[in-house]
Amino acid sequence: MATAINVKLGERSYPIHIGQGVPLAGELDAGTRVMLVSDSNVDALHGEACARQLSGHGLEVVRAVIPAGEATKSLQWVEFLYAKAAEAGLDRSCAMAALGGGMTGDLVGFVAATYLRGVRFVQIPTSLLAMVDSSVGGKTGINLPQGKNLVGAFYQPVEVNADLVLLATLPRREYISGLAEVVKYGVIWDASFFHFLEKHPAELLDRNPELLEKVVARCCEIKAEVVAMDERELGPRAILNFGHTLGHALEKVDGYGRWLHGEAVAIGMNYAARLSVVTHGFKPADADRIVRLMERLELPVRPVGAPLDWRLLREAMMLDKKTLKKRPRFVLAKQLGGVVTGCEVDEPILAEAWTACCNKEPS
Amino acid sequence: MATAINVKLGERSYPIHIGQGVPLAGELDAGTRVMLVSDSNVDALHGEACARQLSGHGLEVVRAVIPAGEATKSLQWVEFLYAKAAEAGLDRSCAMAALGGGMTGDLVGFVAATYLRGVRFVQIPTSLLAMVDSSVGGKTGINLPQGKNLVGAFYQPVEVNADLVLLATLPRREYISGLAEVVKYGVIWDASFFHFLEKHPAELLDRNPELLEKVVARCCEIKAEVVAMDERELGPRAILNFGHTLGHALEKVDGYGRWLHGEAVAIGMNYAARLSVVTHGFKPADADRIVRLMERLELPVRPVGAPLDWRLLREAMMLDKKTLKKRPRFVLAKQLGGVVTGCEVDEPILAEAWTACCNKEPS
Repeated sequence: MATAINVKLGERSYPIHIGQGVPLAGELDAGTRVMLVSDSNVDALHGEACARQLSGHGLEVVRAVIPAGEATKSLQWVEFLYAKAAEAGLDRSCAMAALGGGMTGDLVGFVAATYLRGVRFVQIPTSLLAMVDSSVGGKTGINLPQGKNLVGAFYQPVEVNADLVLLATLPRREYISGLAEVVKYGVIWDASFFHFLEKHPAELLDRNPELLEKVVARCCEIKAEVVAMDERELGPRAILNFGHTLGHALEKVDGYGRWLHGEAVAIGMNYAARLSVVTHGFKPADADRIVRLMERLELPVRPVGAPLDWRLLREAMMLDKKTLKKRPRFVLAKQLGGVVTGCEVDEPILAEAWTACCNKEPS
Repeated sequence: MATAINVKLGERSYPIHIGQGVPLAGELDAGTRVMLVSDSNVDALHGEACARQLSGHGLEVVRAVIPAGEATKSLQWVEFLYAKAAEAGLDRSCAMAALGGGMTGDLVGFVAATYLRGVRFVQIPTSLLAMVDSSVGGKTGINLPQGKNLVGAFYQPVEVNADLVLLATLPRREYISGLAEVVKYGVIWDASFFHFLEKHPAELLDRNPELLEKVVARCCEIKAEVVAMDERELGPRAILNFGHTLGHALEKVDGYGRWLHGEAVAIGMNYAARLSVVTHGFKPADADRIVRLMERLELPVRPVGAPLDWRLLREAMMLDKKTLKKRPRFVLAKQLGGVVTGCEVDEPILAEAWTACCNKEPS
């Protein structure tokens, strides 16, 4: 009752196991010392049970708990985990496991990539977003006061274990936020998957277990395929950033924490869809379908509350890893399931699309 | 009048240029933005001239100066350089150049490896130690309060440019410290190079330019060959740690800064040679030759001043990257030019060899 997907990266290949009750660190030999890290929320819900399972498999578990919230994805908490590991005397034969969402996986992955110049890393995602996106592909990193994910490493885990049982305790808002990345895979890669999602919004919102295994597995398959083409994001992998150029800027301008990542990406996808209509012949009807699907999944598609200053948002798009020589680049759609990367867009169009995006009327 | 050596690592291959007045960043295209980092000492001596040369080649230079001294190789200064880079708006197309000794190279290399998940890195070593050892091979890292080099990344530079002219301003004690690593290459790899060094101690101390180019080139050749066999230090590369198990412990117990790295390694090589005699049939006469050559090069071969507590030193050898499951491992010599790695040694022998090492009488 579990699905296994292989991320094909030569000697850095690894399996993703998806199912109800999958083993949480099956690749590690008995006797391995493993630092199990979770945030305070996840630790309260699943820390003890996870540690017990790992101990039961003969692993020697050192637990570390970090504060919940994006603010923890900082150099300060990297330093905290380095100290924990060094004080526990963890050597190169040890492993580190991230039990949690994207924040925990990104942070612990970076610590694992750099502690003793790299120790083995296990992803145990507990959020939908982490299961379908951040736990797969080896992007690890932290935020700086100057911007999100400005520091990090490409560092592959030795295994990803997505136990769908853990999704039951995920707060509804966080679960829904993860659905934004699910929709993204349909838009960038697989129109029939997009149609499939359009047919099952209610089951998706209900976290139907059979549907979830299918959906998470398909997302991981797509991500694995994209990552295998371009591990270090030199080219095609950038398609995964559909909706993210504006999404990241939004998170930055509005302060980390106001928007969940998936929510910001959902708004960014609305924006990218509108840019795509104007510049890449993307059908307005398909842009509307993206927006409608996200609305049916209860995702935000435009900012709420006080209007955001466009100039601030525009400026925030400058310092982004995808910004080559200070010009923002976008991933834009030509059709459902087909996108192009590295698109530069004229300034007036950027501003008009933002106005359209903030407007409730369909384009 | 320059020697070029290629470090063969597939797509991560790069050249080392050694000579009087070599170009300092010849691999970077005009227009590239480069963050040039040096410590306050090196900056005062060479910062302006180096920046001018880089600008003259069409590079856009952002300068950053860090305090001199091993204490700067810390997370705090990593953070400082991240902020500098982000505030200058450096994107993935930028490069970072380390103008300095091992501390600067290790620190800036780590920053380059992790800023935006990796930007191009240029090594411009200014010390003998950096030229023959730390600038080649891709080991980058910083210290933690818990130990030296506990955090880092394997990250290859795109070029190493060793301008021997820069050695003229190197303080004598630092220059001599670098000679310890030079001697090490003879011991671990090339007996005839060891004999060559034995014949030229005076010219070595005088920094004779022709001799220096030959010696630095031979050291880089050996290092390049070892690194090409084992980029990530999974096996054979560990031979480069001859003298380092005790050397690192000595630096730790005595506080970073009292011993220069090469000085600690010189004492560590005396210690390792004595262990080698007892456990690996290394000729006592060859152990004495190593000690004598180091003495003629004015290197310390035993601690001076108040006696060190062996138990503290023994404990400090526990938390070392080479410590597998808490037992210290040594690189030991079978003959000049031939060593073995991963050696465990019985406790009484460890203690006796330390006593012998501290004693002025030959073994």
